[in-house]
Amino acid sequence: MLTVFGSTALDTIRTPDRVLKDVLGGAATFAGISASFFVDTGLIAVVGSDFPKKYHNILRKHLDLKGLAVHKGKTFRYDGSYDETLSTRTTNKTELNVLGSFQPVVPDYYRKSKFVYLANNDPDQNTKILREFDKVKFSMCDTIEFWINSKRNSVIKMIGSVDAVVINDEEAKLLTKEHNLIKCAKKMMSWGAKYVIIKKGEHGSLLFFDDVIFPSVAFSLEDIVDPTGAGDSFAGAMIGYLASKNSTKLSDIKKAVVYGNVMGSFAVEKYGLAGLIGLSKAMIQKRIKKYHLMTDF
Amino acid sequence: MLTVFGSTALDTIRTPDRVLKDVLGGAATFAGISASFFVDTGLIAVVGSDFPKKYHNILRKHLDLKGLAVHKGKTFRYDGSYDETLSTRTTNKTELNVLGSFQPVVPDYYRKSKFVYLANNDPDQNTKILREFDKVKFSMCDTIEFWINSKRNSVIKMIGSVDAVVINDEEAKLLTKEHNLIKCAKKMMSWGAKYVIIKKGEHGSLLFFDDVIFPSVAFSLEDIVDPTGAGDSFAGAMIGYLASKNSTKLSDIKKAVVYGNVMGSFAVEKYGLAGLIGLSKAMIQKRIKKYHLMTDF
Repeated sequence: MLTVFGSTALDTIRTPDRVLKDVLGGAATFAGISASFFVDTGLIAVVGSDFPKKYHNILRKHLDLKGLAVHKGKTFRYDGSYDETLSTRTTNKTELNVLGSFQPVVPDYYRKSKFVYLANNDPDQNTKILREFDKVKFSMCDTIEFWINSKRNSVIKMIGSVDAVVINDEEAKLLTKEHNLIKCAKKMMSWGAKYVIIKKGEHGSLLFFDDVIFPSVAFSLEDIVDPTGAGDSFAGAMIGYLASKNSTKLSDIKKAVVYGNVMGSFAVEKYGLAGLIGLSKAMIQKRIKKYHLMTDF
Repeated sequence: MLTVFGSTALDTIRTPDRVLKDVLGGAATFAGISASFFVDTGLIAVVGSDFPKKYHNILRKHLDLKGLAVHKGKTFRYDGSYDETLSTRTTNKTELNVLGSFQPVVPDYYRKSKFVYLANNDPDQNTKILREFDKVKFSMCDTIEFWINSKRNSVIKMIGSVDAVVINDEEAKLLTKEHNLIKCAKKMMSWGAKYVIIKKGEHGSLLFFDDVIFPSVAFSLEDIVDPTGAGDSFAGAMIGYLASKNSTKLSDIKKAVVYGNVMGSFAVEKYGLAGLIGLSKAMIQKRIKKYHLMTDF
């Protein structure tokens, strides 16, 4: 199985065309649900007593919730606005609420997870929780500007404790203080990560392992309505695919990246989680085939 | 043969590491020399009486110069500075000099060219000169912000008169007033271009034809020293490869784009033209093989 640890949120997302208020979101929600199309996935997260039942039901449909704590208080809330190009997001408000004091516990049933994804949590918490698993075969983490600015050394330590880092291009540059993405990846590998995956949004991604660079394009889309969760969906699909193959072979990691690109493309086509939760395995396979056709030369 | 019409310049390029003063540059120079590795290429351009003999010799080594006019006065000069990321260029000075009053003439010998590349010249001049060729099989043009801002309707008309447009992503957005690159391409196709190639620098390119989208990655490089001329080298290699095959088949246009990505990568590795003029066909083929290996999954 795969365990995903991270945030479950109530998001307010403002796009040029629509405002979504208090919708189900969070890095672990997107990553977990994306992964769930490939493998049994457990979620470690916390929500407040205000967390709507309908969202519980969505999570339950896709994920094992033994690791989901419900604490008294309000759920973590995020409020952000996209500009008219949908490529720049401004944070209006972040309310940690119950997430602020959350001490995650790994349920016994999850300790046997061979695949673990640590979404963009506090890097110290990520490093710590990883030790609670019995026999991890492949661990992957993401991080965000907030932690890079506030706990850079902890982020570097976390990168030394996982197998793979998946990170946005801008955050990779901020973290490593390099401009060139190959230099960024080399620095993260020097800190201990065996694999580095740099996400470039509409431009696809770069996978690094030893001397290998695998650049891949995004699945081209004309109608993008809400980029929220695309990167998390990418990461969840990647590790979910690998967990389903129980593999860490480079050839499978490349395929996993392609699944990441494809699941990221589904995420941005609809608002909030709608792009993911309406999917079937057949729809995913169909787009994977299209991806192959599209990139073939 | 291929004919390239465009600017030959004396460039002053300021990068964080080095300043190059009055070096051989210009869109047609880069495109023509890049194309010359694939096919006999003729240049239509103008230089001033100050144009150094050593630069004449470089041009002569790669290109047919029947179309190169030498006019009394100073050669077109461009002066630009890159920021420390090498991704943003600021124009310090542009002196048109002899280019300002240049009335290009197509030498008889070039009129039979089946492949014609119109670099980022005045769009009216591009549209006009295209009619002087006897039997064009494939014509391609580029354009730049300057013409989009000053002669947008002429740019649109030019796009209606060529087979293919090759253009930067930012300029495609500026020209079409769209944010999404698929929408940009569709608009340019609605103006009459059969093929649209949008260049995205380090992120590769997108080729559009009918309902086909072919996204391709750039050749990943760690050490980039001077991006000048990369897009021109891309375009020159594309149309040079097609001319060498005497083909406009979609499968060959896709391969041409890959050659474009590879020749663009050589251009940025060294200062000025050094990345191109030191090349051999074997070096190009070797990198094409590497590109295939790199992108395979």
